[in-house]
Amino acid sequence: MKIPDIRLENFVCPLPIRNDRQIVIGHGSGGRMSKLLIDTLFNKYFNNPILNRRNDFAEILLNEEHKGHKLVISTDAHIIKPIFFPGGDIGRLAISGTVNDICMSGGIPKYITAAFILEEGLLLDDLESIIRSMHETAEEAGVDLVAGDTKVVEKGKADNIFISTTGVGFVNKNLNISGQSAKPGDSVIISGTIGDHGIAVLSAREQLGFKTTIQSDVAPLNDIIQSIITAGADIHVLRDPTRGGLATTLNELALQSQVSIQIDESSIPIKKEVRSACEMLGFDPLYIANEGKVVIILPSNQSAFVLELLRKHLLGRDAAVIGSVSPPEKSPSVIMRTMIGGFRIVDMLSGEILPRIC
Amino acid sequence: MKIPDIRLENFVCPLPIRNDRQIVIGHGSGGRMSKLLIDTLFNKYFNNPILNRRNDFAEILLNEEHKGHKLVISTDAHIIKPIFFPGGDIGRLAISGTVNDICMSGGIPKYITAAFILEEGLLLDDLESIIRSMHETAEEAGVDLVAGDTKVVEKGKADNIFISTTGVGFVNKNLNISGQSAKPGDSVIISGTIGDHGIAVLSAREQLGFKTTIQSDVAPLNDIIQSIITAGADIHVLRDPTRGGLATTLNELALQSQVSIQIDESSIPIKKEVRSACEMLGFDPLYIANEGKVVIILPSNQSAFVLELLRKHLLGRDAAVIGSVSPPEKSPSVIMRTMIGGFRIVDMLSGEILPRIC
Repeated sequence: MKIPDIRLENFVCPLPIRNDRQIVIGHGSGGRMSKLLIDTLFNKYFNNPILNRRNDFAEILLNEEHKGHKLVISTDAHIIKPIFFPGGDIGRLAISGTVNDICMSGGIPKYITAAFILEEGLLLDDLESIIRSMHETAEEAGVDLVAGDTKVVEKGKADNIFISTTGVGFVNKNLNISGQSAKPGDSVIISGTIGDHGIAVLSAREQLGFKTTIQSDVAPLNDIIQSIITAGADIHVLRDPTRGGLATTLNELALQSQVSIQIDESSIPIKKEVRSACEMLGFDPLYIANEGKVVIILPSNQSAFVLELLRKHLLGRDAAVIGSVSPPEKSPSVIMRTMIGGFRIVDMLSGEILPRIC
Repeated sequence: MKIPDIRLENFVCPLPIRNDRQIVIGHGSGGRMSKLLIDTLFNKYFNNPILNRRNDFAEILLNEEHKGHKLVISTDAHIIKPIFFPGGDIGRLAISGTVNDICMSGGIPKYITAAFILEEGLLLDDLESIIRSMHETAEEAGVDLVAGDTKVVEKGKADNIFISTTGVGFVNKNLNISGQSAKPGDSVIISGTIGDHGIAVLSAREQLGFKTTIQSDVAPLNDIIQSIITAGADIHVLRDPTRGGLATTLNELALQSQVSIQIDESSIPIKKEVRSACEMLGFDPLYIANEGKVVIILPSNQSAFVLELLRKHLLGRDAAVIGSVSPPEKSPSVIMRTMIGGFRIVDMLSGEILPRIC
């Protein structure tokens, strides 16, 4: 049987990927152009034995080292606008956001998957910058991207790029860090200044005509968190105060643990520039998103040594004890002693002040 | 310390979720309205001990039953248009698509995560239908939704709803089913008729003015696949021919395994209505997407008994042996003996014929 070989690769094939440097609908076909995008762009940065098998699934052998562990899974969709902002981009955010959710179990993130939704017309150079950033952040966090998917929608049916990531990691089965575990008498620590991410992203939205030197704090937190876990701290709760900010996170934790949380306004670390920007724009920094900070709740007799450990870490230099946990009054709540010495209830974010912040 | 309780829930609070029955930006805030959406809608259908802990991560204890297993992970973004179509909706698709990718390892899917991107203005009734459908499909597939995330973008920055799902499952470590494992002498089976999904979705796109009785085949395949695995069949390859259709899938497999694949056009099961629709529209059914079919490659001496097993299953009644594997000519390729007795090379899909089919 002799058949002339008429397949495309035997001809000079001016596919759009080489020509106008934009994503076109065909890149989401699942066919030849999808393959080209994967071969020429994704594989350039994501390269490991699991991914290279080119199956629609990733396989990881469970062996002795996983015995006595819990599997930890977390997922996040990322729709931030703009996709590049001071201190980061949607790629760094997509890896860090999901890595950090795994870290909040006290566990170690190992694998990550990414599902891309691309808008027709997205510049391939922008896509490459984002993929490169994901690769670098994954290296920094010590995770392997093991599975992915790419879809393309028509121009005007998405906004440049959305990235959903899922993380998989492992945590020792004896660790039971959970939002349900805050106890009266515990101390509340924040690992650094609040509001940096939200204000940095806001400053990048041109129409606001607002400039600041603030950089987003977006970063993977596994290293700083493992530094306190391996030191043997008896951590009750870890949570990253992202959307909704510190105020919303503390409210969630108060509800989950059925406790009240008292915080002291004067002890909350806030950069001067963030404070000014918030005053100018009429925002409360307690509700502004963070992407590289963690709230730690632990027995108060451990707060000094954990604070010392955190402050030794590059990402924890401004760590501070900001409050304490008590039995719920009437109902779980968050109460703040203000700078001027009064008290106010700090509620969960209601409505939305900064859409598309992550 | 006595503070007046001024929190929102102590007042009559006309939140949009009760009023205009649409998704608004605030539902993606991460604050009170996000919580309301989760409490009133998501929790109504997704309810299990892992999810109910309300952490940003899910924990699963690894125990004796996981020993000697591989962890299997897969991810997919779903952007299908329209979101409701004959035989299914984006919710059923989002669960089935990812469950099926896990099944292609021969493993059993156990957990699923979902990241939702909602367009402002999406009807809450539509969202509820989709969530209900995800719940029902997850029950059918025996998987638990253990983690989720919901984001909202402005009207015109997405298209109703996009859902990215990630699946996690387990497969016996001695099973090595992979796209790389097709061997000369193997037989190629398809579990049923091709093109149903693509044509059903196409018929639902009103502007095409085209009607058919065809229903999408979208379904979780774990049961039918486990029926042949547990019967002891020595399966080399499993793959679901989704985007790009059977032709693209066979090309991928030929490349991965460095073999050639011969198929026989007359043996490929196609519904009469699908064939007519394809003729009318000028499509080749080999390139039309399927969402409830699987290509099985296995030693030819096992094809008869596997075919018999498949045909006993509701999802495999039209299963057929459609071809065989041989050493690559010059390069890996897919060659089809046509109805009229000639041969033609069947290439991978190039360009895109049916955007947003999954």
